[in-house]
Amino acid sequence: MSAYEVRPVARVESPITDPAAAPKQGFEGGAQAWLAFEPAVLDALDGLAPGDRVMLLTWLDRADRGTLRVHPRDDVRNPQRGVFGTRSADRPNPIGLHEVEILAIDGGRMQVAPLEAVDGTPVLDVKPVL
Amino acid sequence: MSAYEVRPVARVESPITDPAAAPKQGFEGGAQAWLAFEPAVLDALDGLAPGDRVMLLTWLDRADRGTLRVHPRDDVRNPQRGVFGTRSADRPNPIGLHEVEILAIDGGRMQVAPLEAVDGTPVLDVKPVL
Repeated sequence: MSAYEVRPVARVESPITDPAAAPKQGFEGGAQAWLAFEPAVLDALDGLAPGDRVMLLTWLDRADRGTLRVHPRDDVRNPQRGVFGTRSADRPNPIGLHEVEILAIDGGRMQVAPLEAVDGTPVLDVKPVL
Repeated sequence: MSAYEVRPVARVESPITDPAAAPKQGFEGGAQAWLAFEPAVLDALDGLAPGDRVMLLTWLDRADRGTLRVHPRDDVRNPQRGVFGTRSADRPNPIGLHEVEILAIDGGRMQVAPLEAVDGTPVLDVKPVL
């Protein structure tokens, strides 16, 4: 099958810089983070406002794309299972999914929380929670 | 910023073939569909079972990636807004997000519902609903 190219629309600016210390999910201790958007996509933000809940899609650029089975939550006491049944970052297409609240918008920057993604993570998309 | 390559892990087999006639969301009349997985990723399905609810990430390969503002729900009576505040398929990285239930698994094929994605749509990822 064909491959497709994704191009980051923003980048995460977060106090979380160590992947090993990052919480596994935003609701497990995610940070307030800023998203710095590419100037070319700013029209796509029009209408979003503080208080809105959105889904962020990120590209987990430190992930191992060859991993198909893991011990859930990196705990070897959990039996291995396929990555499609887990939220492991290691998976064939390492796209992260994060439900966050918009705290502020300042030009091309948006503050969100709670976000577990580490500083520098590329953002692929923003969608409203339905 | 760098670009990244996504590689489909499965393809949708659906009775919905006309994008113009497809429902906008699965809960608005989505179909029962099969996902045909690539043989190389089958280990990643291990542990999933009928009854599980999962998020599918798809690549909306018919989308216009240059669109930044739309009339929500393709209705010109709705004022235009940025695509990041809508579920428009037309967006810089046209990744679809679909919450579905697994109805059956048969080797490398998985039946899910309700899915609004049209026949042939590439699937990028499967994640458990948290």
